[in-house]
Amino acid sequence: MVRLYNDDSLNLHTDLYQINMAKTYWQDGIHERKAVFEVFFRKLPFDNGYAIFAGLERITEYLRDFRFSKEDIQYLRNELGYEEEFLQYLSDLRFTGTVRAMHEGEIVFGNEPMIQVEAPLAQAQIVETALLNIVNFQTLIATKASRIKHVVGDETVMEFGSRRAHELDAAIWGTRAAFIGGFDATSNVRAGKRFGIPVSGTHAHAMVQAYRDDYTAFKKYAESHRDCVFLVDTYDTLKSGVPSAIKVAKEFGNKINFIGIRLDSGDMAFLSKAARKMLDKAGFPNAKIVASSDLDEYTILHLKSQGAKIDVWGVGTKLITAYDQPALGAVYKMVSIEDENGNMQDTIKISSNAHKVTTPGLKNVYRIINMETNKSEGDYIAMRDEDVQSQKELKMFHPVHTYISKVVTHFEARNLLHDIFVNGEFVYKLPSLHEIQGYSRESLAFLWEEYKRSLNPHEYPVDLSQKCWDNKIKNIEEVKQHVKSLSE
Amino acid sequence: MVRLYNDDSLNLHTDLYQINMAKTYWQDGIHERKAVFEVFFRKLPFDNGYAIFAGLERITEYLRDFRFSKEDIQYLRNELGYEEEFLQYLSDLRFTGTVRAMHEGEIVFGNEPMIQVEAPLAQAQIVETALLNIVNFQTLIATKASRIKHVVGDETVMEFGSRRAHELDAAIWGTRAAFIGGFDATSNVRAGKRFGIPVSGTHAHAMVQAYRDDYTAFKKYAESHRDCVFLVDTYDTLKSGVPSAIKVAKEFGNKINFIGIRLDSGDMAFLSKAARKMLDKAGFPNAKIVASSDLDEYTILHLKSQGAKIDVWGVGTKLITAYDQPALGAVYKMVSIEDENGNMQDTIKISSNAHKVTTPGLKNVYRIINMETNKSEGDYIAMRDEDVQSQKELKMFHPVHTYISKVVTHFEARNLLHDIFVNGEFVYKLPSLHEIQGYSRESLAFLWEEYKRSLNPHEYPVDLSQKCWDNKIKNIEEVKQHVKSLSE
Repeated sequence: MVRLYNDDSLNLHTDLYQINMAKTYWQDGIHERKAVFEVFFRKLPFDNGYAIFAGLERITEYLRDFRFSKEDIQYLRNELGYEEEFLQYLSDLRFTGTVRAMHEGEIVFGNEPMIQVEAPLAQAQIVETALLNIVNFQTLIATKASRIKHVVGDETVMEFGSRRAHELDAAIWGTRAAFIGGFDATSNVRAGKRFGIPVSGTHAHAMVQAYRDDYTAFKKYAESHRDCVFLVDTYDTLKSGVPSAIKVAKEFGNKINFIGIRLDSGDMAFLSKAARKMLDKAGFPNAKIVASSDLDEYTILHLKSQGAKIDVWGVGTKLITAYDQPALGAVYKMVSIEDENGNMQDTIKISSNAHKVTTPGLKNVYRIINMETNKSEGDYIAMRDEDVQSQKELKMFHPVHTYISKVVTHFEARNLLHDIFVNGEFVYKLPSLHEIQGYSRESLAFLWEEYKRSLNPHEYPVDLSQKCWDNKIKNIEEVKQHVKSLSE
Repeated sequence: MVRLYNDDSLNLHTDLYQINMAKTYWQDGIHERKAVFEVFFRKLPFDNGYAIFAGLERITEYLRDFRFSKEDIQYLRNELGYEEEFLQYLSDLRFTGTVRAMHEGEIVFGNEPMIQVEAPLAQAQIVETALLNIVNFQTLIATKASRIKHVVGDETVMEFGSRRAHELDAAIWGTRAAFIGGFDATSNVRAGKRFGIPVSGTHAHAMVQAYRDDYTAFKKYAESHRDCVFLVDTYDTLKSGVPSAIKVAKEFGNKINFIGIRLDSGDMAFLSKAARKMLDKAGFPNAKIVASSDLDEYTILHLKSQGAKIDVWGVGTKLITAYDQPALGAVYKMVSIEDENGNMQDTIKISSNAHKVTTPGLKNVYRIINMETNKSEGDYIAMRDEDVQSQKELKMFHPVHTYISKVVTHFEARNLLHDIFVNGEFVYKLPSLHEIQGYSRESLAFLWEEYKRSLNPHEYPVDLSQKCWDNKIKNIEEVKQHVKSLSE
């Protein structure tokens, strides 16, 4: 097969309509008008009480490298027939916008912007697809990982899902997101190399098959490695696997570090308890039992409630594919655009479903921390020009059911959106992955426990300021009037 | 953030245990022994009657580029502490094995090898993770796409899922898989450039917001593009969107190619019928209605049964994430290995679940085509040394419920596995993507309709030859004896 376009530019990683819209804007001369778009999701995934924002680092790479390659332009010319002047415009294009975003690892809720893009209209449009592609996946997996880590508690949990991930990128960026959500290690060596995540793994069933029996296989492994975890379920866990592991551990003594055994099939509650007794009786009370077999937060919770003796959890498919909800519905909506006079005009997207109506205008998102409890009272979305911190009393009310309200005093209003790019210049210091994981853990600590329950958590308040709410209602009325005028 | 290892080598895209096993084999001097591994899944995804094999092209790229980079070796040395001699062995490693596989687009069923890897043991082990990662995802999406195409029939169906795909690779390789499964086009321009898939797309809600109303937006689009599909649901589909589309189509007349309108929210059955009437009445009976709103094979079937007037279907999230079953469980199992005397010895993986026991030995897979009906009687797995085609009567029996059997005469036995690499040399001519799509369509035509039903399809026979079955039973007995001897 002959490939015509061989370079690996990501600039065409966009939907065709973005380029077609850019063409209309360019031809109409409005492509440089400033527009503001926001990335947010409406509904939390997995019915969880919160989500964990992830994907920012990959997005900064994408935006910093933003530049159509020669081959991109050739493709657009040869196959899609765009005219030369427009292609020249695209060739010269760099990302010159301003981006504000949450720190990676931030706790995030529905209907609040995780990312704001203020950029020339055509640019803001073209980057939409890649931004959503990245944020939707990584935020989904970080959130799933956090749910699992919440159930696992202080024990160790490792990501084992590469073989079921959705192609190669998902395997490594997914395991990075899992680390942000609280995972301890990964089996994927490339992710270890690229992101500095601790890697983990000893041997598979195939090695036992290669040596025909457990004992020989474990012995050969012990001869070539200091740290040993033996996989014991290739033929018969309790009759062959565990006894062989114990035999090798005794024979090698201090020559190896006998970490423990791994169970990969069968009933984990029954087998782990039986194996625990065998290991204890043989004099290995510190040997750990690793379990990996289609685990997720539900199975882990049930195994624990049955008293399973598992010390380390390996989670694959259900995490890396977000099996019970494999898509997050984050969207990218225009909230404001410059008019012909250079003034910003708010915009809205109306829907017959009240939850789908967007919130117009340039806004800030604050986490309202109660200074007495050091816990969060909720998030508060205000217009960019409002001074929230200096208010003595903050009235917080539900943005749909407005009668639900409370007044908060003695609070700290933490601005959740930070400058990433300012007029195309990258101004953010990317934290290390370990710092991101730590930041996420700290952010989660501001939440009351009732928001963290994996089943039926309490709904966390994401409220609008009065000014923000009034502005939204005004915009809705204007659109309704406009539609009414059309049908008269 | 400082990145220590910057290259993009995929050789460490593997689970750590693969490298640790390779180390054991290398240290024990058995790393060059020939081993045979097979890639297969046990259960068809989505309860479908068949699957479509995809991923081969990406796998051939991976294997041809197989080579640890200097940075890979540095990482393994600095962070994981492997010894120099072993690292030298890895540095020199190239893929020297033989790979046989189905053509991409082939119809495949449970428990039959899609890929066979015959390679030096250590190599065969290291490539497992990437192979499964690729095959599992691409086969899953090709199969989901085929289910959707089956319901869509002769109408056009387009892939719109990039923003919800699991990171960037999944978006482009997923849409390629969707094309193999019968899709007509994609919205992803990078996939168009890289794979030659037709790309499609006009504008989004944001463009209507940018121009404040439907009419102005459509007019501006029409001034800058010849082919026009107008998105009509930004404010009010029937009161504003469709009338504005019609107005612009009339005003521009032959200056544009008014392809039609797109609906992206609301009740598609009701709206499409109402819009159809409006378009017909306005003199545009050939204008097409494109629908895109969380569609999948179930929604499409129901919309059709309600008489929805939709001509073109855009499918996103539910396809690209394989929403109702986001993982295929293909595995990679050792079926044979060279012993110390250079003879191949079959191996088996036993499980208490009869469906999970592997089928040992070097095998071929045949599709048994009945020469009278030109339809397939089933697939037939035989040992490599059996001559299936020359048999006058082929006895086919169920590999678990062996009493279910039939005798087939006058058949053609089509070998489904083809040489891809022979002793490391790439010998396969990769077909074009259009050829793959065509091949898949032809392969599907050999199946009776009862296997193609999207709900409760009939079970297609995948049978073992008598010799293959006898060999499996012999291997099971040997393992049982071995385990019994341990507990005596």
